[in-house]
Amino acid sequence: MRADGARCSPFAGPVRRSRFGSNDRTPADNGDQGSVTAVVDPSKVRPPADNALDRLTELVADDMRAVNRTIVERMDSPVPLIPQLAGYIVASGGKRLRPVLTLAAARLCGHDGNRHIGLATAVEFIHTASLLHDDVVDESDLRRGKASANEVFGNQASVLVGDFLFSRAFQLMVESGSLDVLRILSTASAVISEGEVLQLAAVGDAATTEDTYLTIIRSKTAALFEAACRVGAVVADRPATEEEALGTYGLNLGIVFQLIDDVLDYSAARAKLGKSIGDDFRESKFTLPVILAHADGDAEERAFWARTLGEGEQHDGDLEQAIALLARHDALVRTVDRARAVGRQAQDALADFADSPIRRTLIDTVDFCIEREF
Amino acid sequence: MRADGARCSPFAGPVRRSRFGSNDRTPADNGDQGSVTAVVDPSKVRPPADNALDRLTELVADDMRAVNRTIVERMDSPVPLIPQLAGYIVASGGKRLRPVLTLAAARLCGHDGNRHIGLATAVEFIHTASLLHDDVVDESDLRRGKASANEVFGNQASVLVGDFLFSRAFQLMVESGSLDVLRILSTASAVISEGEVLQLAAVGDAATTEDTYLTIIRSKTAALFEAACRVGAVVADRPATEEEALGTYGLNLGIVFQLIDDVLDYSAARAKLGKSIGDDFRESKFTLPVILAHADGDAEERAFWARTLGEGEQHDGDLEQAIALLARHDALVRTVDRARAVGRQAQDALADFADSPIRRTLIDTVDFCIEREF
Repeated sequence: MRADGARCSPFAGPVRRSRFGSNDRTPADNGDQGSVTAVVDPSKVRPPADNALDRLTELVADDMRAVNRTIVERMDSPVPLIPQLAGYIVASGGKRLRPVLTLAAARLCGHDGNRHIGLATAVEFIHTASLLHDDVVDESDLRRGKASANEVFGNQASVLVGDFLFSRAFQLMVESGSLDVLRILSTASAVISEGEVLQLAAVGDAATTEDTYLTIIRSKTAALFEAACRVGAVVADRPATEEEALGTYGLNLGIVFQLIDDVLDYSAARAKLGKSIGDDFRESKFTLPVILAHADGDAEERAFWARTLGEGEQHDGDLEQAIALLARHDALVRTVDRARAVGRQAQDALADFADSPIRRTLIDTVDFCIEREF
Repeated sequence: MRADGARCSPFAGPVRRSRFGSNDRTPADNGDQGSVTAVVDPSKVRPPADNALDRLTELVADDMRAVNRTIVERMDSPVPLIPQLAGYIVASGGKRLRPVLTLAAARLCGHDGNRHIGLATAVEFIHTASLLHDDVVDESDLRRGKASANEVFGNQASVLVGDFLFSRAFQLMVESGSLDVLRILSTASAVISEGEVLQLAAVGDAATTEDTYLTIIRSKTAALFEAACRVGAVVADRPATEEEALGTYGLNLGIVFQLIDDVLDYSAARAKLGKSIGDDFRESKFTLPVILAHADGDAEERAFWARTLGEGEQHDGDLEQAIALLARHDALVRTVDRARAVGRQAQDALADFADSPIRRTLIDTVDFCIEREF
């Protein structure tokens, strides 16, 4: 999708002075302990297509094992349906990107205890609760190609187990003993719900502006990425500047992630891989690609969007026609370009941290999120 | 339903020494300031039929006005559907029993600040969120005789606005600055969800035991009553014994409240008042009255319960038949008797607080909850 990794580099020159000093105490790390100066050569840019998220997960692998153990322990309940349903959705997996971000942020900030384990678990539980409620809201029957929890266990159980996981998340935060963490994550949760309601109100609304769309994705997706990163800095007891920097990184990475998700939902390449596409189309969501194509479309094209998304009247071949219209107006490419610009802001936000494997991999993760094809 | 108010008195004799001292600084209060000895004469027992809950609300009327203002302020959002839907369910009212309990508990414990206002609001938001999710779960079309929020706004918005209010509740708790409050209410929230899931799993299950039923109502209803009372003691910075005592009061009052709710759902008297009955029957819930009648029923009666609740196959006249079977086995009267015994435990729990209008009215509220007909 792109081959301009170097263009994404947030570095103005070959040498940067770290403002925050070196705090990345990952065992794999070396060479910058005790130094506040880090040398980064943009010509040594990593191959952009490698899976930086796997590398990031590997850098916090021990912590992630502890998180996975905590997830299993804390989703348990004397009420058997709870671990059954929670286990179903937790096992259906995903990359656990959000808790990895909490772990990586905490390590980047030099946290050498284990307070971040419970918080990363809390972040994952908030995400899982929100997936469970989303599937009820979207009336989805599939998630990641597998029958969704509401399809298997019913809407009712999905709503209630979502509530349970959400409560468990707050119990875990209370155990962290930090009111700042609770403030950050309770605020993020409220913002997520606001974003979901705003999205619901915008369903089928051809008047949805780019601004409204951006508010929706900042809220429903990026707010949790932001909070996941922030709490890493908070448990590490770092100054507000580092918390802000990681918050900016997380927020922009979250926007990138959702923009690309919205692109992939219309990706012919992805369909060829046997992955499901067209969910947003079926759910009548005016995502950025559609907003761009709609704005540039002629009367006939607008009538197509009005029928299929505005009135939700969809027939065989409509999804293919939608994909053709997006291609005609370069809407997917333009959305990816937008993601690249936002991604650079994420990467720039880490400029003042000392160079380290975690910092480099967080930067690469932005590129990876832009180029991913799943 | 009863005329034995005096029998409910928790007092062994006419004079009690207060263990906790006098902390009830309500303006309406007098006569016990500075004294640790309170004289209570059981012959002066209030007329049991008066509305003690109204009196309790009146005793904390100023605080309750502040709570109502905070409810309106904090359910606001830039996303218009949120205050619309939240306002709809908040306006559809109820007695606000739970926040009144928080306010009364805080005043009973001598709190003279206003930290309890936000907490009482948080308690009401948790309750409202749980109502919104319950209605989705129960597929209810009516709540208190009015179209339920999910009927008017859709299940999707009800789930999401419930999540929003739940998050707002945690934001309010964070503002209280007390990790103890957060611990109590996040634990209560997890327990509530567990109770709801347990209830869902027990739907239509004729093997539901009295024990399971009691676990369900302790969790889904009484846990929030308990927490609402506990946090009152916590904001007042009272010793653990007072928190425990108020917790015991709240827990048992909550059990009473739910037992009577389950009785009223089959009350012919209530039906005559034009109130809706039979919700639990239609939702195939094995509540205590049914469990008692089922246990004592003959083969034909058990076949009736198996058909109507076990298989959910219900016809005209079945509700009337159910009410007749409950009457045949005194199941409603026996459930009310059970509520009376639990109610005494609630009242006994307040024995060591100094006498005061709030303490007396909390005790009367138990009787009122047993005798209410709505």
